[in-house]
Amino acid sequence: MPVLRTLILFLFSFQLVRAQALVWTPVQPGVWKAVVGKPEAYNLLTAAGAKPSTSALAKLGPTPFPLPQPAITARLVDGKTYLRFPLNRTEQLYGFGLNFQTVHQRGRILNLHVDHYGGSDNGRTHAPTPFYVSSDGYGVFINSARYLTVYAGTAARKDSPDPPKSRDRNTDKAWTSRPYSDAVEILVPAAGVEIYVFGGPKPLDVVRRYNLFNGGGCLPPRWGLGFVQRVQKLYNAEQVEAEAAQFEQQGFPLDVVGLEPGWQSKSYPCTFEWDKTRFPDPAGFVGNLLRKGIRTNLWINPYVAPSASIFKSIQPYTASHTVWTGQVPDLSLPQAQTILFGQLAKDGVNLGVSGYKIDEVDGYDSWLWPDVATFPSGHAAEQMRQTYGLLVQRYSTDLYRSRNSRTFGLVRASNAGGTSFPYVIYNDYYKHQDFITALINSSFAGVLWTPEVRSSETSEEWLRRIQTVVFSPMAMINAWDSGTKPWSFADVSKPVQDMALLRMQMMPYWYSEFARYHFDGTPPFRAMNLEEGFTSEVKNELVTTSLEKNPYAEAVRKEIKDQYMAGEFLLVAPLFAGQTRRTVTLPKGNWYDFYTGELVGNGQQITASPGLNRIPVYVKDGGIIPMMPSRLHAPKAGETVPVEVRYYGNKPGVYQLYDDDGETFAYENGQYSFRAIRVTRQANGSIQGTISAPVPGKPNTVGAVTFTQMTK
Amino acid sequence: MPVLRTLILFLFSFQLVRAQALVWTPVQPGVWKAVVGKPEAYNLLTAAGAKPSTSALAKLGPTPFPLPQPAITARLVDGKTYLRFPLNRTEQLYGFGLNFQTVHQRGRILNLHVDHYGGSDNGRTHAPTPFYVSSDGYGVFINSARYLTVYAGTAARKDSPDPPKSRDRNTDKAWTSRPYSDAVEILVPAAGVEIYVFGGPKPLDVVRRYNLFNGGGCLPPRWGLGFVQRVQKLYNAEQVEAEAAQFEQQGFPLDVVGLEPGWQSKSYPCTFEWDKTRFPDPAGFVGNLLRKGIRTNLWINPYVAPSASIFKSIQPYTASHTVWTGQVPDLSLPQAQTILFGQLAKDGVNLGVSGYKIDEVDGYDSWLWPDVATFPSGHAAEQMRQTYGLLVQRYSTDLYRSRNSRTFGLVRASNAGGTSFPYVIYNDYYKHQDFITALINSSFAGVLWTPEVRSSETSEEWLRRIQTVVFSPMAMINAWDSGTKPWSFADVSKPVQDMALLRMQMMPYWYSEFARYHFDGTPPFRAMNLEEGFTSEVKNELVTTSLEKNPYAEAVRKEIKDQYMAGEFLLVAPLFAGQTRRTVTLPKGNWYDFYTGELVGNGQQITASPGLNRIPVYVKDGGIIPMMPSRLHAPKAGETVPVEVRYYGNKPGVYQLYDDDGETFAYENGQYSFRAIRVTRQANGSIQGTISAPVPGKPNTVGAVTFTQMTK
Repeated sequence: MPVLRTLILFLFSFQLVRAQALVWTPVQPGVWKAVVGKPEAYNLLTAAGAKPSTSALAKLGPTPFPLPQPAITARLVDGKTYLRFPLNRTEQLYGFGLNFQTVHQRGRILNLHVDHYGGSDNGRTHAPTPFYVSSDGYGVFINSARYLTVYAGTAARKDSPDPPKSRDRNTDKAWTSRPYSDAVEILVPAAGVEIYVFGGPKPLDVVRRYNLFNGGGCLPPRWGLGFVQRVQKLYNAEQVEAEAAQFEQQGFPLDVVGLEPGWQSKSYPCTFEWDKTRFPDPAGFVGNLLRKGIRTNLWINPYVAPSASIFKSIQPYTASHTVWTGQVPDLSLPQAQTILFGQLAKDGVNLGVSGYKIDEVDGYDSWLWPDVATFPSGHAAEQMRQTYGLLVQRYSTDLYRSRNSRTFGLVRASNAGGTSFPYVIYNDYYKHQDFITALINSSFAGVLWTPEVRSSETSEEWLRRIQTVVFSPMAMINAWDSGTKPWSFADVSKPVQDMALLRMQMMPYWYSEFARYHFDGTPPFRAMNLEEGFTSEVKNELVTTSLEKNPYAEAVRKEIKDQYMAGEFLLVAPLFAGQTRRTVTLPKGNWYDFYTGELVGNGQQITASPGLNRIPVYVKDGGIIPMMPSRLHAPKAGETVPVEVRYYGNKPGVYQLYDDDGETFAYENGQYSFRAIRVTRQANGSIQGTISAPVPGKPNTVGAVTFTQMTK
Repeated sequence: MPVLRTLILFLFSFQLVRAQALVWTPVQPGVWKAVVGKPEAYNLLTAAGAKPSTSALAKLGPTPFPLPQPAITARLVDGKTYLRFPLNRTEQLYGFGLNFQTVHQRGRILNLHVDHYGGSDNGRTHAPTPFYVSSDGYGVFINSARYLTVYAGTAARKDSPDPPKSRDRNTDKAWTSRPYSDAVEILVPAAGVEIYVFGGPKPLDVVRRYNLFNGGGCLPPRWGLGFVQRVQKLYNAEQVEAEAAQFEQQGFPLDVVGLEPGWQSKSYPCTFEWDKTRFPDPAGFVGNLLRKGIRTNLWINPYVAPSASIFKSIQPYTASHTVWTGQVPDLSLPQAQTILFGQLAKDGVNLGVSGYKIDEVDGYDSWLWPDVATFPSGHAAEQMRQTYGLLVQRYSTDLYRSRNSRTFGLVRASNAGGTSFPYVIYNDYYKHQDFITALINSSFAGVLWTPEVRSSETSEEWLRRIQTVVFSPMAMINAWDSGTKPWSFADVSKPVQDMALLRMQMMPYWYSEFARYHFDGTPPFRAMNLEEGFTSEVKNELVTTSLEKNPYAEAVRKEIKDQYMAGEFLLVAPLFAGQTRRTVTLPKGNWYDFYTGELVGNGQQITASPGLNRIPVYVKDGGIIPMMPSRLHAPKAGETVPVEVRYYGNKPGVYQLYDDDGETFAYENGQYSFRAIRVTRQANGSIQGTISAPVPGKPNTVGAVTFTQMTK
């Protein structure tokens, strides 16, 4: 009997676990899709409403399917989908969302789950994008709004064609608690899923394809790249206006003022209505600032207070559970969208409010809706958790698009599909080094990230943080609690001002780099690992051989996670409070000091010790950095500014300077231009620079162009 | 159209989420069961093969259903089961498995998942028992071998009859990021489940019912309560024998020697066969030790090495994935059981080996099988993860039961259903204070836990750790790596010896307390919260009001988690390295110093500073501690030992002294007795003690009985 029982069990389990043959359909040049089982209709791409940038993908062109197809398998087991992708011995993996402490993901186990980052890279993060990039030049994306469990090269199968060697720990010093694994395995808790493979050949090509497949990166308005100050949470209109005036008087740039919860009559949960004691004339207030060249951004979280005027109307379209006593709109329903975003229009966008900071759409579990919550749409709480950040970005962006006015805001959760939304992710975790690692990883997750500055223990820390946020997608001080101003640390007030003004000067460069993000898919801030000529080994070091303290002889990983690329030409290697020097790993090719133009090295490790006032920044050979004069506000639509082209090194340099009106969506209808800047070095060592003529009929904001030879 | 679409969605979702009416069937006195949906056939109780101790439950008698039945709801949503249990404003919750840092569980979110404890109470632990106890005197058990997500009073519903008050954070200082929640909600990722409710009226009654429902606590052999030394991992037979001889010479008790991986020809993965170079004559070796009164315990993990003799035969019954290159037997299959435990019998049990230490059946994920592994039984990897510890305990216990010889071993994973297995949980986490909190919580999880001693930084730490392990289910030094002996820290060698000998002297007490665990369900080591007259508030303290550092104003919980009850009468309040004094919270009633018999307090907080050589221990009024003379080995079956009855305080004392042969399963067939010890204080202050006569025909190991009046 037991034999019969086992036979039946065997056949049954064979039935259950038979691998499904995958059919790979090309959906875009270099992008393939396979369907396993019955994928769920509600997924990351449908939630985001993402549409591929077809023409840009076509420009990138075809590439062969990058993996051995039979080695990719899918099984339907236990009502779930088990996926397997092959790994070879040497490849490294990047991505799986916005990680804060690790860049190399091979060997990690992650449960991809939207959450406020909790201090370890376990998959719970603000954008747990189910996408990874291989150093071998391909990418994999799982289009599921479920919590996926990823074994990124950790598990070994008995039927593996290349299994790890069995060793006797008693006698073999090469024994390891992490035997070799030849596959990425992923558990999708649904009986079917869509999977996508992205071709290369280079890892950056993969990232570009992925971003373009998601609609291309967002293009912020020019003012979005200026300086942002979020003021103290209970400031009233007068206090905000006084603070804005102080910026002007002291010569600090300011493009956006962010109002924190106190602008609302009640918040946490929110009314989305102005507090009339603090802001008696909201329209006047917003208009006054606008006339001074300053935009207003409003903090919200999307949870509706019982005293909100929309409370009764939105209630039928909210979840079973509340967040901080606020009703949770089911933003997958048009009714909820109309009511919530209608209120945002009424008290915000229609008054000239430039954008939103959308809080608490990520976690923690202790205050977000539980996984047992139900939503009137019928979507599972898990699916809503994975997509809520996408939904708030999508429909708030629509508000601005319908008014032909760009926005650039902050959000605390995103996911795959959200690449084109004009939002930067932030959080409350405040470890400076980890903020930089997040900036690196944002380039694998199709999102933007700001290492926001709140306050600091010391002036040194303040300046170091300001230096990095200035080399990030959003240069922001978040003084909601501390009320800190850029000049609050008096002894570093001047270098802080210099950095803020440098941010403004570099606006033509930043803006062009964001255009590349949008039109070409190249992330403006990205990992060194996407840079050609960069090599970095992961070193696993045994910190202690004491089996008392380390019973499984687990190694600690050492990897480069504190330097990144900013735009096409710049390598940024931040210093952190307490450091006076650091090692910088330069990719192959000559690299030059950003400030002096001097050659610093080529494909080697150098030591940087530039003093407190400078953040180490290096420029690639042939690097071209277009800059504008130092100023306090971004150019307005139609305004013309002179451009200084800084040129570094010796190689002939080419740069595509982007131009449009800087404020509307007209660029989506072709109202933009790229103008080619070329610089060559002459026989006598001097340089010659040219810029192509303005494109007739397109916006032109470029005034006089000058060329500066940085490398003598 | 949108209206129609929404209406359809509404009806659909209503359909999906309608609450199921629960029918509560009494299954034992004070125990009720309800069935939701279609429960899975493989669950914790079936995996463990647990059978209720019907007669003991009958003795506990009936009690009313302890909760308002309509407030318990279940819904089938998204292929999962959502459960809800009501909470009133003041009750506290305990349990949800072997937590290490918290006793009070109300307000926590846990994903119950068998794993090596990773440093935070998030549900991942060695015994994530899906059972909780309310201070209101009832318990709830979810019989599922899935990873359950528990919201233990964290989530708030919009239709709650008692919702939290909405507050404006801008102006209301009483705003909290943790609004009141009136329910425990649990997500079971399966379309049905069995749930059980246990009645009280007291929390200890609930625990007893739960333990008895699981078959009652294990009764170790007497020798299992003696001293255990696990020797260095590559010791050979001579070295083990020499170390055993040293114990004898130096006067340190020793009942069990544990051999670590080096006893096997290969390990991690394992052969389960002796290494003949280190152990040329296993049977002789085991027999020699046995003749000296010392048992042998063997380390294994259950993962089969390619070079094991059972490798080929077991391979068809193993999982798809390997653990450290070892094949994973599907221990739910009789074939795998027969082969693996047959090998253990051959090279172990049949030679006189007394038990096993079963490692790595818990985690971590990085080396255990992934959740995408498949097993020939067809059970999901998740289900196998949740039950593997149960399976190895169950079938290894059967090996001993079939030979009518008790065992007492170590295991690193268990779960509900495993209460009756003679195993103590241990781990590699080595925080002394957290080890004590685990000891406390073991009493809510139906498991035993040892705060094992490995090595220490200082003699002070060494002695403090020895003191606590001596007041625990297994008094063990695990010197697998360090080779530390009890006398290794020379300056505390004498007090360590005193503690070890005290452990032996107290054996009659410990053995009787384990008998209570088995026959009455009362955990021998347990939380103060199960003790009548103990009150402890949870204080939530704001560590910082800086919103920079604590943006959600989260409070830190302060609770008593460093003192516990040991047996009926003893309150143990350990000191940890670095402490010279501590606060002890005494329940109501008079309490006496264990060493001096002096009154120390009544329902109050006292300060203990007993010096380095003593661990603070207090005795309840009327406390009776039966002791035997100090000796190096447990009494053998049939041996008679004199008993000294120590009596504390003034109240008339009663104690049931348990007796049986100490080694076989004959007690299961009635071959045991409880003898009543009574002590009363006379008018003149002296005491009078009696012990009931030996029960004819039952084993009697009690020799001369003397009575000592500890309180003068």
